[in-house]
Amino acid sequence: MSHCDINYHRAMSRWEPDSAERLRAAALEIYLEQGYEQTTVAQIADRAGVTARTFFRHFADKREVLFLGSELLEQEMTAALAAAPASARPIEAVAVALDAAAEFLGSGLAHSRRRQSVIAANAELRERELIKMARLVDSLAQVLRQRGSAEPEARLVAEVGIAVLRTGFEQWVGGPDDGDLAGVLRESLARLGALVER
Amino acid sequence: MSHCDINYHRAMSRWEPDSAERLRAAALEIYLEQGYEQTTVAQIADRAGVTARTFFRHFADKREVLFLGSELLEQEMTAALAAAPASARPIEAVAVALDAAAEFLGSGLAHSRRRQSVIAANAELRERELIKMARLVDSLAQVLRQRGSAEPEARLVAEVGIAVLRTGFEQWVGGPDDGDLAGVLRESLARLGALVER
Repeated sequence: MSHCDINYHRAMSRWEPDSAERLRAAALEIYLEQGYEQTTVAQIADRAGVTARTFFRHFADKREVLFLGSELLEQEMTAALAAAPASARPIEAVAVALDAAAEFLGSGLAHSRRRQSVIAANAELRERELIKMARLVDSLAQVLRQRGSAEPEARLVAEVGIAVLRTGFEQWVGGPDDGDLAGVLRESLARLGALVER
Repeated sequence: MSHCDINYHRAMSRWEPDSAERLRAAALEIYLEQGYEQTTVAQIADRAGVTARTFFRHFADKREVLFLGSELLEQEMTAALAAAPASARPIEAVAVALDAAAEFLGSGLAHSRRRQSVIAANAELRERELIKMARLVDSLAQVLRQRGSAEPEARLVAEVGIAVLRTGFEQWVGGPDDGDLAGVLRESLARLGALVER
């Protein structure tokens, strides 16, 4: 078991028991095989070897299998942002939140790739993803205001942080199997600094 | 007639005859009075003093009244980006596109405020707006690639440009009646430069 696998399982077990993880893996498999729209909860439960009732103990519906992680990502990022040193500049605090995102997502490259393929293939899911990202911007901006940033600075820095997350995440998902998300995000933030330099 | 009014009417007349403009104004009025969902095309046409048939000559449905401008904004911004001097750095070319956005939107503050209120009040419209913004990022990134930017730089700069547009636009809509969108956007881009400075 590699270092990454250990991190992955540690991250997963923090917030879900085995059947939820089996259901998630089964759902992604079937979504990729036959399409998200065509898939039923019964099929997912079947593949995972559990009942539909067990499915609904973990997820409200088949869409939530894909988006429960987004809620948790938001919690991780806002908590990290709130806990960043008071002396950190807003963009430095956002860098801490990006590190937290990398820690949360970074050991699940195979999972992220599969999830990304499923979402890219379905307009409704792409829209849902946009909405989640917009909410993430709102939450980060709120924490930045609590940390003392005024508007429009808070929103601008939050938007930029999510722009870095989005582009870095895409780069990582499309990159080599041993890609390091934390490194990609830090590099992306540094690149941004160079790109907007006056 | 102020300088702004002249620009406004020039911008409008470039792409629509009077009845389209009357329909748009009528639609926004009714959306604000009674809500977007409750409004019918017949009511809008009635208020504008035209037939429903005339409405459908200009707009596919009542939603397009709110979003046709987004298509035109995209055309203006991508054209400006493509036409920016070849020597311009990506972020400088995006600044040119933001100037074009300000020229397109900047003389219609009252309209933008009304439109913003209608969209903020309806979840479906907020989602549609997010999708339009995501498409705008895609289009700008594509032009940046045509101008010679590689990924992930192209996407990063496009995302940042739209982040600046979004926050600047919000600031302008919520600001004083004589607010200058072009100035707000330039200031926002400069602020970003200072915020991400290493």
